[in-house]
Amino acid sequence: MGRTWISPPREGIWLSIILRPSLEPYEAPRITMTCAVAAAKAIRKVAGIDCRIKWPNDLLVEGKKVAGILTEMSADMDSINFVVTGIGINVNNTDFPAEIKETATSLKLASGKNVDRLKILTEFLSQFEGFYRDLENGDFEKILGEWRELSCNLGKRVRIIGRNSELEGIALDVDSDGALLVKTDGGTVERVLSGDVSLRE
Amino acid sequence: MGRTWISPPREGIWLSIILRPSLEPYEAPRITMTCAVAAAKAIRKVAGIDCRIKWPNDLLVEGKKVAGILTEMSADMDSINFVVTGIGINVNNTDFPAEIKETATSLKLASGKNVDRLKILTEFLSQFEGFYRDLENGDFEKILGEWRELSCNLGKRVRIIGRNSELEGIALDVDSDGALLVKTDGGTVERVLSGDVSLRE
Repeated sequence: MGRTWISPPREGIWLSIILRPSLEPYEAPRITMTCAVAAAKAIRKVAGIDCRIKWPNDLLVEGKKVAGILTEMSADMDSINFVVTGIGINVNNTDFPAEIKETATSLKLASGKNVDRLKILTEFLSQFEGFYRDLENGDFEKILGEWRELSCNLGKRVRIIGRNSELEGIALDVDSDGALLVKTDGGTVERVLSGDVSLRE
Repeated sequence: MGRTWISPPREGIWLSIILRPSLEPYEAPRITMTCAVAAAKAIRKVAGIDCRIKWPNDLLVEGKKVAGILTEMSADMDSINFVVTGIGINVNNTDFPAEIKETATSLKLASGKNVDRLKILTEFLSQFEGFYRDLENGDFEKILGEWRELSCNLGKRVRIIGRNSELEGIALDVDSDGALLVKTDGGTVERVLSGDVSLRE
């Protein structure tokens, strides 16, 4: 998709995890959601800031992007071979390139103090391990409940730009396939599986 | 899944095609369906036999398996990187190992004569190219229409054995995600995304 991530040395966390979940390919977005919940909770606990999940794969603080998740998979039609979920977190970054200056932030900028990268990392991995176990035990509802509480989208007006379409409406909920349910102005509820989202106030 | 395919030299066709379709991961079963339609049509035309598609990825002649399709993909959450679709066709095989003797056949056994492997191959590739172009042009409905006509499942009683469940009912239709719509005896219509199917008479 031509997306880039800026990662200066020793300032952030850039991590990939390889997983072999017992999921079908259409369930793979659950991994992204599990990762987002674990990271948001770790950031809130360690840095003490109000970190929120922006559907489908960003973490925001004060409306600015502090972390992003990218999940890739190898699969056949009825089962996943493996998944690689990668996360990048801006921890102690204080400067960003011009093109993302207005939309990016870091845990340090948001909390006003240096944040221990190792503490974020260990808390994230510990949270992730717990939720991944829930996922494997078939208890995705628990993760979905956490995701809903941490979301900055639900109940808000959103505009979603997909590859071939644009949609605006109220984000009602997210379902277990990771789809965002959006009530359009026409009154219909659309199931959106991917796209770039902007929040409208 | 521990599946095997028996492939003695010079008797069959064993082929993989790498593709980079503009599809989202949940649409990948369309590739399997496109491949099945192209192969069934090529076999019917060249070998002159009534070859039918058994959902999700087998081709049958007289109720016995003559070809199988296996599609694997590499994807991120909102787009496919690449797909490898593999097909194996029993062309001039006359003998099968004991464990599949009752359920497998070949174009030669079904038609009573030797079948030119090169003719099958070129007809298949030519059919596939045409339908793949339809797929990329957003005209999957055309392929779905062909699939429905070639299916041996629709309107029939089926039993589907999934990883954790079993289901029996009438196969009503297949949808654009490749799901089989099955009307159970309870009267509900279930959307089945994967599983092994047996036809019940």
